Amino acid sequence: MSLFNVYPLYNITPSLAKMCYVYDNKGNKYLDLYGGHAVISIGHSHPKYVKDLTDQLNRIGFYSNYIINDLQKKVANEILEQSNCKNYNLFMTNSGAEANENALQIASFHTNKSKIIAFKNSFHGRSNASLSVTYNDQIKSKLNKKIDVTFLDFNNKEMFLKEISKGDVCAVIFESIQGVGGLDEPETNFIQYISKHCEIHNTCLIADEVQSGFGRTGDFFAFQKHNIKPDIISIAKGMGNGFPVGGVLIKNHIKSKFGMLGTTFGGNHLACTSVISVLDIIKNEKLVNNSKLLELYFKEKISTIKSVKKIKGRGLMLGLEFNFEAAELRKKLIFKHKIFTGGSANKNLLRILPPLNIKKKHIDILYNALKIELS
Amino acid sequence: MSLFNVYPLYNITPSLAKMCYVYDNKGNKYLDLYGGHAVISIGHSHPKYVKDLTDQLNRIGFYSNYIINDLQKKVANEILEQSNCKNYNLFMTNSGAEANENALQIASFHTNKSKIIAFKNSFHGRSNASLSVTYNDQIKSKLNKKIDVTFLDFNNKEMFLKEISKGDVCAVIFESIQGVGGLDEPETNFIQYISKHCEIHNTCLIADEVQSGFGRTGDFFAFQKHNIKPDIISIAKGMGNGFPVGGVLIKNHIKSKFGMLGTTFGGNHLACTSVISVLDIIKNEKLVNNSKLLELYFKEKISTIKSVKKIKGRGLMLGLEFNFEAAELRKKLIFKHKIFTGGSANKNLLRILPPLNIKKKHIDILYNALKIELS
Repeated sequence: MSLFNVYPLYNITPSLAKMCYVYDNKGNKYLDLYGGHAVISIGHSHPKYVKDLTDQLNRIGFYSNYIINDLQKKVANEILEQSNCKNYNLFMTNSGAEANENALQIASFHTNKSKIIAFKNSFHGRSNASLSVTYNDQIKSKLNKKIDVTFLDFNNKEMFLKEISKGDVCAVIFESIQGVGGLDEPETNFIQYISKHCEIHNTCLIADEVQSGFGRTGDFFAFQKHNIKPDIISIAKGMGNGFPVGGVLIKNHIKSKFGMLGTTFGGNHLACTSVISVLDIIKNEKLVNNSKLLELYFKEKISTIKSVKKIKGRGLMLGLEFNFEAAELRKKLIFKHKIFTGGSANKNLLRILPPLNIKKKHIDILYNALKIELS
Repeated sequence: MSLFNVYPLYNITPSLAKMCYVYDNKGNKYLDLYGGHAVISIGHSHPKYVKDLTDQLNRIGFYSNYIINDLQKKVANEILEQSNCKNYNLFMTNSGAEANENALQIASFHTNKSKIIAFKNSFHGRSNASLSVTYNDQIKSKLNKKIDVTFLDFNNKEMFLKEISKGDVCAVIFESIQGVGGLDEPETNFIQYISKHCEIHNTCLIADEVQSGFGRTGDFFAFQKHNIKPDIISIAKGMGNGFPVGGVLIKNHIKSKFGMLGTTFGGNHLACTSVISVLDIIKNEKLVNNSKLLELYFKEKISTIKSVKKIKGRGLMLGLEFNFEAAELRKKLIFKHKIFTGGSANKNLLRILPPLNIKKKHIDILYNALKIELS
């Protein structure tokens, strides 16, 4: 039996990983400035994380959501403490796609409507509803085109008002920093505008924080820069440092009902432990602040390289934009310099999504490699 | 921050679990004949499983699917060896819902069609496409009604032929034993009939083995009793013994394409290790055979209890049907006798889904409790 061949693979087989380094089965050591698409938040095989998960594994890894799981409450309380998002409830899932599925489902239940507004260049996941609100037609089947979705440009208030005023929109879903799309951001006054009009028109505003959440951008959530309170916040990636876990934070005014949502694995004991451990480490090692500090160092240092046209993003969710396609450079960084970085829908952009506890010296390694390749 | 209140909870907080026993935070010991909806296949905290996961956790837990992961190939090969399902390819996901999402997605891509046939009393998951093909309208939002789905009765060839002959059906999805629905099974000649007509009409036949797979029914997959080869097989629950993991097996004639599917967490190193460990234990402890043997003992013993009207299901995927609603009995079993069992959509049915390595003595414990409550 082979693997269904959907990935153009780099010929590297990792067999070990420690903090910001990945080692392949030939003994090569790679600096990981990508974290498998922003998943590795606290570093690979962090000793506290390994210990916490091992301890939990020896107690209980999983049981049904029909009996009490105190660890889920601990996750909720810790997210509240660190994010300062008051008046939300938590529902846990296994991935970012499932988080967005549930977010859209809740919005439709709450408003009893079914049209959705999303934005151009968005990416929200690989299940049916999450694909429906994803901008890329190349990855959509006929099934993903059944839901009525309007894709708008960021910052176009007029078009937005026209669409939402129709009154049939259950949800507006947006990324504060577009991950796969290429690190573009909407303006604060636009986000505040859509937030206001969502409230007026009984529409749920969904902040997709799957990639940008959990401290990556220098705030706990990327939307917090805009001083809004979304109705629903979807979370995943960095929250479990690679453990399959996601969730939605749901504002109190949205009422729950028995049976309204459900999940078999979601919020299992081991998943909760991974999140609690990640949150402990984010707090103990002050990683939200480190994201902010390292952003400054990164921008200062890397902006001195002439062929870097623009540095996009915030915190440690960054993109280097060039006047040329970045694929060849990315390959050279991987195979010659042993540095992992990421691509995006914007072919001229290199994505930098390292573990949040990297140090200046790791940015220097990238700087030196870029200097060699670009001068 | 509270939990979004969607589960009517039993007031029990598990804090430890070993093999077929769960212990709560007050020191009570429960016999687990439910496994959190058929998830616990090899027993809670199985020592080999704990060791395998701990070892992997110390090496590498996760990396991106854009570089090679040999463990996924090992999962594929081991499934082939134990299931004897030749000519399939594997794609891994994080849950059964995601498995069915991908199954339907593949069917739509492959056939370039979008209508689906499902069956009454089906349950396929809690994301948009998987909810669309789930029979229960109570848990559906307006979003879940956009896909064109026809629900048919099992064993009605005439109606099936009428629907599939329209030529616009991308997928027929079925459970060989309906889990949530209440353990009903279609007849072999019906399943062979739909399999034949799927081939004739360029429609993908999807066997949902999320609950019934991985040895639970005394065969590796429940559909194997019917001697068919589905185009797509969806898997999850027992495959990781509580680790969030799922997947689809896709027949060779369905061609893959770069970018056609994708997942961030799916098939991560830790998930693969959980599946490999489960499969090793299933093989070493001969658990498929144990399911078969214990079914015989269970049916022989429990059928002597007069008020048990019917024993449904196969292997260790069993249901006890009564002439009365089973909720009160289920509560007594939990709180008085400290035995976990499950409910279903059929209110007169008690579901029995124990770890596959339970012994006769555990069935005797249930027998004695039922004798006390029902005589």
